[in-house]
Amino acid sequence: MKEEVILSSHGGDIYTEGMLKGRELIDYSSNINPFGIPDCFKEKISEALEASMRYPDYKYRRLKDAIREYHNCYDRMNIDEEMILLGNGASEVLDLAISSLKSILIVVPSFIEYEELSSKWGLNIEFSQLDENMNYDYKNILDKLRDTEGLILGNPNNPSGNLIDYEKFKVILDYCESHNKRIIADEAFVEFAPKDSSLLALVNNYKCLFIVRAITKFFGTPGIRFGYGISSNEEWIRNMKKKQNPWNVNCFGEHAAIYSFKDKHYIEKSRVWIREEIPYFLDGLRKLSFIDRVYDTNTNFVLIKLKDMNGQQLYDKCLKKGFVIRRAHNFRGLDDCFVRFAIKNRINNERFLNILKNVKT
Amino acid sequence: MKEEVILSSHGGDIYTEGMLKGRELIDYSSNINPFGIPDCFKEKISEALEASMRYPDYKYRRLKDAIREYHNCYDRMNIDEEMILLGNGASEVLDLAISSLKSILIVVPSFIEYEELSSKWGLNIEFSQLDENMNYDYKNILDKLRDTEGLILGNPNNPSGNLIDYEKFKVILDYCESHNKRIIADEAFVEFAPKDSSLLALVNNYKCLFIVRAITKFFGTPGIRFGYGISSNEEWIRNMKKKQNPWNVNCFGEHAAIYSFKDKHYIEKSRVWIREEIPYFLDGLRKLSFIDRVYDTNTNFVLIKLKDMNGQQLYDKCLKKGFVIRRAHNFRGLDDCFVRFAIKNRINNERFLNILKNVKT
Repeated sequence: MKEEVILSSHGGDIYTEGMLKGRELIDYSSNINPFGIPDCFKEKISEALEASMRYPDYKYRRLKDAIREYHNCYDRMNIDEEMILLGNGASEVLDLAISSLKSILIVVPSFIEYEELSSKWGLNIEFSQLDENMNYDYKNILDKLRDTEGLILGNPNNPSGNLIDYEKFKVILDYCESHNKRIIADEAFVEFAPKDSSLLALVNNYKCLFIVRAITKFFGTPGIRFGYGISSNEEWIRNMKKKQNPWNVNCFGEHAAIYSFKDKHYIEKSRVWIREEIPYFLDGLRKLSFIDRVYDTNTNFVLIKLKDMNGQQLYDKCLKKGFVIRRAHNFRGLDDCFVRFAIKNRINNERFLNILKNVKT
Repeated sequence: MKEEVILSSHGGDIYTEGMLKGRELIDYSSNINPFGIPDCFKEKISEALEASMRYPDYKYRRLKDAIREYHNCYDRMNIDEEMILLGNGASEVLDLAISSLKSILIVVPSFIEYEELSSKWGLNIEFSQLDENMNYDYKNILDKLRDTEGLILGNPNNPSGNLIDYEKFKVILDYCESHNKRIIADEAFVEFAPKDSSLLALVNNYKCLFIVRAITKFFGTPGIRFGYGISSNEEWIRNMKKKQNPWNVNCFGEHAAIYSFKDKHYIEKSRVWIREEIPYFLDGLRKLSFIDRVYDTNTNFVLIKLKDMNGQQLYDKCLKKGFVIRRAHNFRGLDDCFVRFAIKNRINNERFLNILKNVKT
């Protein structure tokens, strides 16, 4: 019997078929910055190692200062310390935010943890479907919000890569603010999107808004586990903090954030790379006969609709050539016609496009 | 106005008065192995850094194998993978174990997180006091267990350093096993105690027993955040796992455990050091006029009862000389007559004893 390849319901399980069997696989299933760990952090690894011999600062003062400086520099935003919630990865931040609600509207397809966490905490769940172009259906969201306490959505959204259009979203923000509803905007991928895509500038005016960020994707450090949330609703933040365990952020996460946020060169080269790579990769994909549709994306992955082949078949063909892709069949609202590809550096994207060109349907 | 020095209610806050002001302090308040990070892990830091660019294995297979080998080697114990719960530090493991109960008997004085976590989760709390020699009052524990679902206690206990006496504890184990009660034994410090002090050998016979371990103390890595729990009650383990977030252990914690557990030289030299240092340090302390009582200890810290001086006064005098100690007034059942000292390497213990010799009451 063939071993199940993707044991987890997420992308990024390169262990089962790959590493644990000594095989090198190229991972197009998880969406991590191909530049890897920022040099500014790598150079400070001995400082982090030294720090591992102490408990972290209970208040994480240096880390919070670094977050404040980062958003001051890149978003021209002043964030108070009390507006920040620190997490062991964005997972913990999402877990706390979702557990603070009794009912939730989830826009789908989206990161499957939203639904899993909502179920875990026993929330009543409603869904709003993306439209046929994989954009938000703002009218539908507003309608359905009447029956739920909160809304969660990605900006950009995973797996579709679409952004929130502020002009259209404003009516939802205003409605939530005046009706004491909550909005969780997951911006784990926002640094890959064009400048000023973040909703961060709105948090001071909208207490309903909670923004989730992480170093995981843009700073290439999913193993380190550091994410955070920002809201001007300090009571909401305080209540979530009360549920946390002490020292929940490890010293490597702390140091990775402190030094990566200062790495201007890394940030700039990553932005240049993704703006160049999106059109190159999408153009290549759009020439392939077994692809029905390549959805526009604002970030470092792209959703694909297949024809004459399903996701399992393409997965198997790619795996034979050493590439792991993400089948999208377990995203609510999608089926096995859909797959998601990460966008990597030019060399790998070229190799991957060449593999795909030779795929027989 | 003087700034509050200990902002956290734990030991180990050397940030407020120390590091954040550029001042070097010697930390006798937190109980970490003075040998620091094991070489076997330090040598593999680039492997861990490399791993930080991937999500950890969703199933943590290598890590669980390392835990199993470690206990096979040092405790002659076969542990199944399903018996292990992995945590972001022992904090998460304790949090999950405590949250699985409705009522709890806490032996005090003990690690203050037991009570804080129990309050956070709304448990009914009973207390059993250590006897006048800071040993467990087994009869009292058994009596009070009739009204609670579970029991938590340290082995060795913090801040008192006493161990569970298996012969006397057996009646409690049997009672809990036959009455479907739960025992959480916190063994965060057990590797500092004499060989065979652990209750681990009992887990296969007692489904009521859950043992909490961590690399934090013995392997000198509090900043890394890795702890775990072991029980043969697989249903209990499964239910706790369901509450966890994915990838809760970071890759540095994973690598630190994998390689530290293999570091036989580190383990052996640490054991030799603590067996030599306990009598040396305690003898020195017992000669001091302002100390009423030095309690026997089996681990790397010691509880002290003062006379002619209180904990705040001694804390201030030590801080002036660059040493941070742990006032014990906020341990339930103790007052400001009590302080706790870590036990460090010979050079620091000598310096510290010399400082103490010159303390004026």
